[in-house]
Amino acid sequence: MAHINAHFLDLPGDYLFSEVARRVAAYTASNPDRKLIRLGIGDVTRPLVPAIIEALNKAVAEQAVAESFRGYGPERGHSFLIRAVIRSEYAELGIEEDEVFISDGAKCDLGNFPELFAADSTAAITDPVYPAYADANIMCGRRIIHLPCTAENGYMPQLPATRPDLIYLCYPNNPTGTVLTKEQLQIWVDYARARDCVILFDAAYETFIREPNIPHSIYEVPGAREVAVEFRSYSKAAGFTGLRCAYVVVPKSVRGLAPDGGRVSLNGLWTRRQSTKYNGCPYIVQRAAEAVHSPEAKAQLREVIDGYLDNARRIKETFERLGLSAVGGVNAPYVWIHLPKGVDSWDFFDTLLTKAGIVSTPGAGFGAHGQGCLRLTGFGAGAATAEAIERLRNFSW
Amino acid sequence: MAHINAHFLDLPGDYLFSEVARRVAAYTASNPDRKLIRLGIGDVTRPLVPAIIEALNKAVAEQAVAESFRGYGPERGHSFLIRAVIRSEYAELGIEEDEVFISDGAKCDLGNFPELFAADSTAAITDPVYPAYADANIMCGRRIIHLPCTAENGYMPQLPATRPDLIYLCYPNNPTGTVLTKEQLQIWVDYARARDCVILFDAAYETFIREPNIPHSIYEVPGAREVAVEFRSYSKAAGFTGLRCAYVVVPKSVRGLAPDGGRVSLNGLWTRRQSTKYNGCPYIVQRAAEAVHSPEAKAQLREVIDGYLDNARRIKETFERLGLSAVGGVNAPYVWIHLPKGVDSWDFFDTLLTKAGIVSTPGAGFGAHGQGCLRLTGFGAGAATAEAIERLRNFSW
Repeated sequence: MAHINAHFLDLPGDYLFSEVARRVAAYTASNPDRKLIRLGIGDVTRPLVPAIIEALNKAVAEQAVAESFRGYGPERGHSFLIRAVIRSEYAELGIEEDEVFISDGAKCDLGNFPELFAADSTAAITDPVYPAYADANIMCGRRIIHLPCTAENGYMPQLPATRPDLIYLCYPNNPTGTVLTKEQLQIWVDYARARDCVILFDAAYETFIREPNIPHSIYEVPGAREVAVEFRSYSKAAGFTGLRCAYVVVPKSVRGLAPDGGRVSLNGLWTRRQSTKYNGCPYIVQRAAEAVHSPEAKAQLREVIDGYLDNARRIKETFERLGLSAVGGVNAPYVWIHLPKGVDSWDFFDTLLTKAGIVSTPGAGFGAHGQGCLRLTGFGAGAATAEAIERLRNFSW
Repeated sequence: MAHINAHFLDLPGDYLFSEVARRVAAYTASNPDRKLIRLGIGDVTRPLVPAIIEALNKAVAEQAVAESFRGYGPERGHSFLIRAVIRSEYAELGIEEDEVFISDGAKCDLGNFPELFAADSTAAITDPVYPAYADANIMCGRRIIHLPCTAENGYMPQLPATRPDLIYLCYPNNPTGTVLTKEQLQIWVDYARARDCVILFDAAYETFIREPNIPHSIYEVPGAREVAVEFRSYSKAAGFTGLRCAYVVVPKSVRGLAPDGGRVSLNGLWTRRQSTKYNGCPYIVQRAAEAVHSPEAKAQLREVIDGYLDNARRIKETFERLGLSAVGGVNAPYVWIHLPKGVDSWDFFDTLLTKAGIVSTPGAGFGAHGQGCLRLTGFGAGAATAEAIERLRNFSW
């Protein structure tokens, strides 16, 4: 019989959001009339903006006619989109066309990128964190070095005591909503250069940054192009969670070590990985993503993002009025609530679900150091968020 | 420095179609006025049929309005599509909803599925073959057992001399266009059951089958549900090469062996893999795929597929008139031409490119046993195919 990849058996029993969904389904089954407000999973609720819909309609019409029909595109993405990304996001950061790879989601990119490294590599991952980083590495049999990010260290992870091969950083952070300044991020880039590590920088939430001196891209930090790969996504930036488009920047100067001591560009390895196991993001979706970078869409999206940030701010204020402190919600759609001392985050999740009909995400689901915390998101519709705030007015636990 | 996955260095220097593209680009650069006819890569040329365009337009309109907007879908696909697949394709084959997984392409599914098995598994792969099967396994460090498929054995691979863990079968076959009867496929299912192997059955071309007694699904063969995983795609069946949608059927009864001797369902492992590293196929694309199973689309697509098959038949006849024998082109869009004895397939590729302006795919690119052969496809537009046939009328090499 074929032997399975036994590393799968090392994974935690269930994926966080599956467990949340299971508990919600169980509650709904016995309380079918209760209207739930979902502020748990980070999914957007506002529709695609008109400039994006227009681009989609145009692209669909092209697919109906032989003269403009498009079949397979380049695995790495169409040039029109890669150029739009560089013009709009990396104009002054020295990123070149063959360093940008379009895909159907940052979750795929982040999940697949670890394939490029030796099985016995080590990965340093902040804790709490988006669970897929660690899970993708556990599936390869890797050892994880956890970097606690808590109220005690101001959500600034300490440099690891032993050198990791890979370092995952996500800023603005999911789940805590905290950010790093340019100077703080410089510390990590310097460390990675000194110790020859690769930084996997998840910038899925950069559109939410509103304060100055918070880098939108890691390449704003000198030296980053030698050590960092950056993951971006249209999911939260432009409401593409159901449309699926993202990109990853792999500078040709980021290298790994071959067994013979040679230095191998990760860009070449990723090109090979994608051309073997991927077949490109849908043409019509790439046209929609191109439209995201237009002035019309940017103005329309600014309003959408501001709405989500406003939700997050109000949620944060509500919990603060209840006597709980919180971080995030300023440069990110996430609010990270510190629960009363000793309260378990899955218990609080259940209380909030059953007493207020609000779906949250328990901090412990993001790692051991998320215990005692809760994540709420500003992605709800304005009215639903307002109702949640109303329900929370007299909430007690 | 982070060590790379050294198995990448074991890969052949370039991906087949990249090399074809490179040679074509070089030729075009020095012959900019020469109109090339591309009968090489298996990409479709006819536009999406009206029933699919209608479904796309409707789904895009839904995404413009908050009430009908859809964000993240289930990683495994929306129920509406899974149900349509079962009703349309597996009604009498006993496949259940939680055994069908929607994705953005069979290339991704086939590339990612090997992750579920132990690194030291062995894979038996027919030769010649779609290069991604072997490459995805080489990237995991696996040993490949090649199963020659040649004119000598009538393109029916022999059972392997040593037991493999995984067996890749693709019928109707890419690149040879040959098929297996139900009885021939039964031999493989019986072998896999007797020797505890897993069959990865690529059925991407089943829509092209026109003769009776050729199984469209491996599950038509008794016992297959215990040992076979089936990969299907909308790419060739419905012109989705640029739209990207596919599915894989993983019966819960197909199992692998854990280190403790326990039997683990591959369905559960694939669920976990997809929920960790994938985020679902675009909603609008899944609505388009759902429409493929409607009676209107089926009638429209029948005509499209018949057109491609007609092209293939005419290409085959043309080469036969030139004195070369060929297989395929009856239940598949591919024609596999036997070159004159001793002629190298890359040389013939170059000759056909430079003398007739026709892009083909050299058989050697599909494996050692493809040497001396050439793949042409019926996917060209009708007019372009007719012109290619005209150019070939007095072709000599």
